[in-house]
Amino acid sequence: MGGRLRFLTAGESHGEALTAVIDGLPAGLALTEADINGDLARRQRGYGRGGRMKIEQDQVHISAGVRWGLTLGSPLTLTIRNRDWENWQQTMSVGAPPAGAAPKAVTRPRPGHADLAGAMKYGHRDIRNVLERSSARETTARVAVAGVAKRLLGEFGITILSHVSEIGGVRIGVLEVPWEEVRRRAEASEVRCADRAAEAAMIEAIDRAKAAGDTLGGVFEVVALGCPVGLGSYVQWDRKLDGQLARAFCSIHAIKGAEIGLGFRAGSRAG
Amino acid sequence: MGGRLRFLTAGESHGEALTAVIDGLPAGLALTEADINGDLARRQRGYGRGGRMKIEQDQVHISAGVRWGLTLGSPLTLTIRNRDWENWQQTMSVGAPPAGAAPKAVTRPRPGHADLAGAMKYGHRDIRNVLERSSARETTARVAVAGVAKRLLGEFGITILSHVSEIGGVRIGVLEVPWEEVRRRAEASEVRCADRAAEAAMIEAIDRAKAAGDTLGGVFEVVALGCPVGLGSYVQWDRKLDGQLARAFCSIHAIKGAEIGLGFRAGSRAG
Amino acid sequence: MGGRLRFLTAGESHGEALTAVIDGLPAGLALTEADINGDLARRQRGYGRGGRMKIEQDQVHISAGVRWGLTLGSPLTLTIRNRDWENWQQTMSVGAPPAGAAPKAVTRPRPGHADLAGAMKYGHRDIRNVLERSSARETTARVAVAGVAKRLLGEFGITILSHVSEIGGVRIGVLEVPWEEVRRRAEASEVRCADRAAEAAMIEAIDRAKAAGDTLGGVFEVVALGCPVGLGSYVQWDRKLDGQLARAFCSIHAIKGAEIGLGFRAGSRAG
Amino acid sequence: MGGRLRFLTAGESHGEALTAVIDGLPAGLALTEADINGDLARRQRGYGRGGRMKIEQDQVHISAGVRWGLTLGSPLTLTIRNRDWENWQQTMSVGAPPAGAAPKAVTRPRPGHADLAGAMKYGHRDIRNVLERSSARETTARVAVAGVAKRLLGEFGITILSHVSEIGGVRIGVLEVPWEEVRRRAEASEVRCADRAAEAAMIEAIDRAKAAGDTLGGVFEVVALGCPVGLGSYVQWDRKLDGQLARAFCSIHAIKGAEIGLGFRAGSRAG
Repeated sequence: MGGRLRFLTAGESHGEALTAVIDGLPAGLALTEADINGDLARRQRGYGRGGRMKIEQDQVHISAGVRWGLTLGSPLTLTIRNRDWENWQQTMSVGAPPAGAAPKAVTRPRPGHADLAGAMKYGHRDIRNVLERSSARETTARVAVAGVAKRLLGEFGITILSHVSEIGGVRIGVLEVPWEEVRRRAEASEVRCADRAAEAAMIEAIDRAKAAGDTLGGVFEVVALGCPVGLGSYVQWDRKLDGQLARAFCSIHAIKGAEIGLGFRAGSRAG
Repeated sequence: MGGRLRFLTAGESHGEALTAVIDGLPAGLALTEADINGDLARRQRGYGRGGRMKIEQDQVHISAGVRWGLTLGSPLTLTIRNRDWENWQQTMSVGAPPAGAAPKAVTRPRPGHADLAGAMKYGHRDIRNVLERSSARETTARVAVAGVAKRLLGEFGITILSHVSEIGGVRIGVLEVPWEEVRRRAEASEVRCADRAAEAAMIEAIDRAKAAGDTLGGVFEVVALGCPVGLGSYVQWDRKLDGQLARAFCSIHAIKGAEIGLGFRAGSRAG
Repeated sequence: MGGRLRFLTAGESHGEALTAVIDGLPAGLALTEADINGDLARRQRGYGRGGRMKIEQDQVHISAGVRWGLTLGSPLTLTIRNRDWENWQQTMSVGAPPAGAAPKAVTRPRPGHADLAGAMKYGHRDIRNVLERSSARETTARVAVAGVAKRLLGEFGITILSHVSEIGGVRIGVLEVPWEEVRRRAEASEVRCADRAAEAAMIEAIDRAKAAGDTLGGVFEVVALGCPVGLGSYVQWDRKLDGQLARAFCSIHAIKGAEIGLGFRAGSRAG
Repeated sequence: MGGRLRFLTAGESHGEALTAVIDGLPAGLALTEADINGDLARRQRGYGRGGRMKIEQDQVHISAGVRWGLTLGSPLTLTIRNRDWENWQQTMSVGAPPAGAAPKAVTRPRPGHADLAGAMKYGHRDIRNVLERSSARETTARVAVAGVAKRLLGEFGITILSHVSEIGGVRIGVLEVPWEEVRRRAEASEVRCADRAAEAAMIEAIDRAKAAGDTLGGVFEVVALGCPVGLGSYVQWDRKLDGQLARAFCSIHAIKGAEIGLGFRAGSRAG
């Protein structure tokens, strides 16, 4: 038996490493670093992310909680080293600041980021002290944690898939294929889109935005298949599944909304 | 000094009473039942809710945590009696089931409710055992808790307002008035809409839907004014303000989505 | 299925009522107010507590979470009214302070109580605002919560018993009887002592102390029978059963220590 | 501003490393690995622990949450490598079990340890899967966490000291010296005892026990100096400081009791 799953992540974007400790897993779950590395690699893909697959790839290292390929019931330590660390050792040194010319401080807060609020909250004059942790790089640790969670869910026949339904105003059409086909197509698509026609238009929209020095927003859908009835509970506000899911999504960087089922379309449907 | 605010609610829809216990308030906060009753009354308003203001109104009773009009620092007990309780004493008796003809069980689960999942999760054969707690009546207790929270926020100059921006496909236009005027208009509107033209169209849409035996969804906006910089934190996933807000909203009955700022429109904006 | 059991209590010693809300119980557990009242009555017994069984007895009232004698899976509300409340309505009024001569403030902090620290922490000038909540009267609500927990444990064949092993330096001898006999004797004893000889000496010691205007400390032992192997866990510091038990005990008023098994005697055993 | 301090530890006794992640620290706290290493070294001392100071000493490595000697407000990662790891890489491999002759399983549960309960709870046949985490080696990570906490407390003028008051039935006499002198003496003593006469008798007792193939229990006292009034709170059971302290102590391996102030002596005092 495990307990209630909980985890903490740590790590700066250009620091030595990202770390996650996960408590509450059951014993006897088959788990390898490869189970997690697949998701880490997927996280690094995406059209327009530098024009080509990055040469470097994140790799998780498990240093606790697993023995001979099986979880022990004890907490897991997951570490993902920042491969660029050797170039940042001075700038991001844990110890004394580098002698001589110190790396320049970041002093101009970017709009739409945690820069200003973070600097005010924590009293930082060098915004690097904020952005190193507020960076979306942190999600790397959460993707690793999620890889472990997916292994556990897999034992119960529960699988998770996701696909992009909208980018820059381009929406997919109705997908009249099984979910497994949606997954397959999304995995094969540079923009994780399961609708070929929309995919082409999305790529065009990205190219246009890029040429104009802009970026685009989008929408993705996450589907959990094989869930048992009765997850979460209606009996207390903080046990409701919808709320817990919305929290998880809206804690991801740059995500500005979460819907369950029909979502906001329920509000727009004419009577 | 108070602690971390936390609360639990209890109570069935047709049971004796709804109760909330709130822990973590500071001492010395001026608080009366009237501070809370205003919000409870507002909760019971709404166009189409039976055609007229309900004669009965919810009233909170404070039985702990306040003395001589000031909080003590100790936990609050808030109780809202169900005024219909005397007609339900047998059906909802805590003690032995009523002798003779027992009230009929509810056996047909309603779609879109917790009925089926709840009955399966908790092993209930009488769906009344689910719907009595899964009912939106529970939000009465949370509105009372929120009334206390708003009193506390008020000490810091923080105020909360809300208004309806869409019902059944009818959207408001751009509101070029101060937020206090939005609040004033929303409070005066039967559908809590701050745009007169849209308000009329919303009421028509509701009337049409009602005549057709249907209901409509909608969208509302909540605005917090006077917040200090730096609430929440970017340093750990579960301390992010966006996630905490989304969780709070999506834990409300029938709410199927939450957006922060631009929300989903950010995904639809053409490049 | 239930969730993780959690509860909050509220209520002042001379306020209207003590309240507890319990979340996380499973559905279908047989539970009556009588199940709880037995423990409440036992809490009010004790040699030297006014010389005779108090005429008034605490009675719990369940107003949520139970229907027709079975838990619903939803939260329980337990209320124990303070029977003396009508004499304290002015002194402990939730609303405006009483007109005319206000009840006198308590201004002399008692040593060994929360009076001084509480008044400083919460900024109270009238120590009544502290002692009303710091009073051991609060344990009444916890005894009620524990009554519910014992009903749940009973379904798994787990029973809890306790007996007094020392009062004012008088210790019991070795009890070479079955635990059920210890329980029976303790229940029958005015000082909850299962050793007849020690019981007499304890009563004498209490009488002597009382005559001298003093009180005595003591030690009691709590025994859980029928526990399954593997409660708690060694994998994370805050899941260790010993720590959780010690916390529960040391959160009770006037309890200054907790031991598991041999306890401090392990430190005194000569090599 | 920081948040509520919380931490998780991970790591097996002969695994690669022990790790702790700490969340909730404020920014701007001066912190070096040396601040923590002092406590780690002290943890490894103790009379009879092999007859001489161990050559190897635990060293913490900070890989997140600190920059240029100051905390960032973001979570800390503390890692203490197990120096013996290279000899245990096969036995404790995270990946596939070693080819050829697998290291022998541990199948005889030791009394007084988590071996049996842990194996039953988690379904382990090789007790090594239990003892690697239930080992007191885990406290190394907690000592590191405590080192950080002590740095934070130091900013408020709060200091913590401890000394041994009893070993194997040998008790110290009354210490009529200032606490700082108690600390100084305890630090200088092989058995952390501030009473010279008792110290000699304790060492004799240990030697005797050792010669007889036995071990001894003991008692230590922890003192916090400079605490502000009002830590913890009487308003809710789980916020009481006594309970939280007792939990922390009784979560340490082999600790079987915790007392506050007079403790159990209050029960033994004759009237």
